[in-house]
Amino acid sequence: MAGSAKNSPRDTPGDDKVLAIDLGGTLTKIGLVSRKGSVLKAEVFKTGAMGPFEDFMDQVEQVFAKWQKDPGIKPLAMGIGAPNASSLTGCMENPPNFNWGNSIPLREALKEKWDLPAYLTNDANAAALGEMYFGVARGLEHFVTLTLGTGLGSGIVSHGKLLTGSRGMAGEIGHINVFPEGRQCKCGLKGCLETYASVTGIRRTVMELIAEGGTDSVLSAYSYDELEGLTISHAALQGDPIAIKAFEFTGKILGLKMADTAAHLDPEAFVISGGLSQAGDLLLNPIRKHMEARLFRAYRGKIAVLTTEYSSEEAVLGPAALAWQHLDEGGV
Amino acid sequence: MAGSAKNSPRDTPGDDKVLAIDLGGTLTKIGLVSRKGSVLKAEVFKTGAMGPFEDFMDQVEQVFAKWQKDPGIKPLAMGIGAPNASSLTGCMENPPNFNWGNSIPLREALKEKWDLPAYLTNDANAAALGEMYFGVARGLEHFVTLTLGTGLGSGIVSHGKLLTGSRGMAGEIGHINVFPEGRQCKCGLKGCLETYASVTGIRRTVMELIAEGGTDSVLSAYSYDELEGLTISHAALQGDPIAIKAFEFTGKILGLKMADTAAHLDPEAFVISGGLSQAGDLLLNPIRKHMEARLFRAYRGKIAVLTTEYSSEEAVLGPAALAWQHLDEGGV
Repeated sequence: MAGSAKNSPRDTPGDDKVLAIDLGGTLTKIGLVSRKGSVLKAEVFKTGAMGPFEDFMDQVEQVFAKWQKDPGIKPLAMGIGAPNASSLTGCMENPPNFNWGNSIPLREALKEKWDLPAYLTNDANAAALGEMYFGVARGLEHFVTLTLGTGLGSGIVSHGKLLTGSRGMAGEIGHINVFPEGRQCKCGLKGCLETYASVTGIRRTVMELIAEGGTDSVLSAYSYDELEGLTISHAALQGDPIAIKAFEFTGKILGLKMADTAAHLDPEAFVISGGLSQAGDLLLNPIRKHMEARLFRAYRGKIAVLTTEYSSEEAVLGPAALAWQHLDEGGV
Repeated sequence: MAGSAKNSPRDTPGDDKVLAIDLGGTLTKIGLVSRKGSVLKAEVFKTGAMGPFEDFMDQVEQVFAKWQKDPGIKPLAMGIGAPNASSLTGCMENPPNFNWGNSIPLREALKEKWDLPAYLTNDANAAALGEMYFGVARGLEHFVTLTLGTGLGSGIVSHGKLLTGSRGMAGEIGHINVFPEGRQCKCGLKGCLETYASVTGIRRTVMELIAEGGTDSVLSAYSYDELEGLTISHAALQGDPIAIKAFEFTGKILGLKMADTAAHLDPEAFVISGGLSQAGDLLLNPIRKHMEARLFRAYRGKIAVLTTEYSSEEAVLGPAALAWQHLDEGGV
């Protein structure tokens, strides 16, 4: 990652850097990132989403206090990615799995701790910018990222810019419908794409396939709580019929829906990331096959399906790209 | 339309005007349109899509020759809307129902006849611009137009600009999937939205409902070829059960899919136009009900469903808006 980023056309001399914060439901990562995408300094701590927001801010302050002592560290701006964050309000809006209130003024709170221009967007949008600046989407102007983790996060880039929509809430592709009376989603709707195409989704699919009679599988020994995405990948690679079927089903649904997304946006590529993307061809082959079969003719054979090159340690590259984009545009 | 447009903030003094051409499968409309959206002059002729392209150009030339004699007519630019037209290539690309070749260099051909800056886009995109400049979408920056005619055409406006995608082919919402093994679409795919949500789609739905046993309907007297959208509307208004069911089914499918479109784009509104939109509340009530029930919570209660105020005579306003937009941006 860092190696390929070294040749980025966005590279400039000097030691400009930005502060980047990736706030996750479990871990928060803070990094200092150069214009060419090198992570110069990094800290990780437990977010404490169920504890008080003040505890989170205390931990941020400790990192900031330590770094501010070093006179060589002078970031130009701060980029923040967080779940359910709105670039318009600067707040996390009703984040599920957080106990910090309904509207958390994250941008202002962080800006106060280190007086820098601060930019906030949701984690999936930040990831899309990271791919465009430092990842597999470098050079692309029209693409969609799909992050297949606990849920399905998505970010849309059109004409080289994040598509934000009228309320900063565009790109909720995890909540398009697959089956009108399908699986119950945490959002309250039924049949949302993320209930099928995510780590959680494929775990549900395995349980469903076992329920339908597929007990001739190593996966029948796992409870839902025990079952991890990697367990299913390993089983599939060893020829387990239920595991293979689960990937085929997941890839088929995702491929069909990606064709619908293409019919909206005419992208050059999709970028798949998140835990489930580690399954590689087990997932990509059915995605490509079913997407292609369902694409409107204008797009057929023309849309790449890529996987991220990031490791999860590099999650700060997304918020870093957000800060760089604002700086490139004149710091507005 | 012209009345409301008079108060447009885009209004300027002077007598600036543009030449606008709406090329349809049946009729071609040419107009001279002021900055405030007044149609100052208009001509209509049969396109002759099955005859030679040269015949079409001869007809255009006759209109141009007549208008060019009038020294008061000095358009600033030419806007053209046509089926399957690409703003990137300046051509109509493989238009079905036309016998003019695979790639028709419409922009260059027309530019040669009247030496003006000429801009081309597909008819659905032009319609979206027309709504933004002169229609019900004035003041909106994020909206989607759905034109329900023989097929379903769509145009997406995001941040006040047409979303074109990487190949100028964004906004093919008519070809997102409703049922994987659904109705055969002319595009070669199965189950496309336009096979359900269009004038053609509702005619197919009526035939299906009659086939399923609904012969207690005035519509059972009509052949598929005879059946028009207005016939179904009239029957529904008089309480015909099949006609009412057909609108309910059409509106339900469209509403569900509009919720998916909203999850991509976070728009302020949808603008419904085309023959089927004349059914008014017969169609709008089920659309609104089913869209709302399926919307992700961030959008619920926040997306307007509007119908166009245009008459079909005003179809030149779309291509006129295209020309004005380019002029506003400095004629690029």
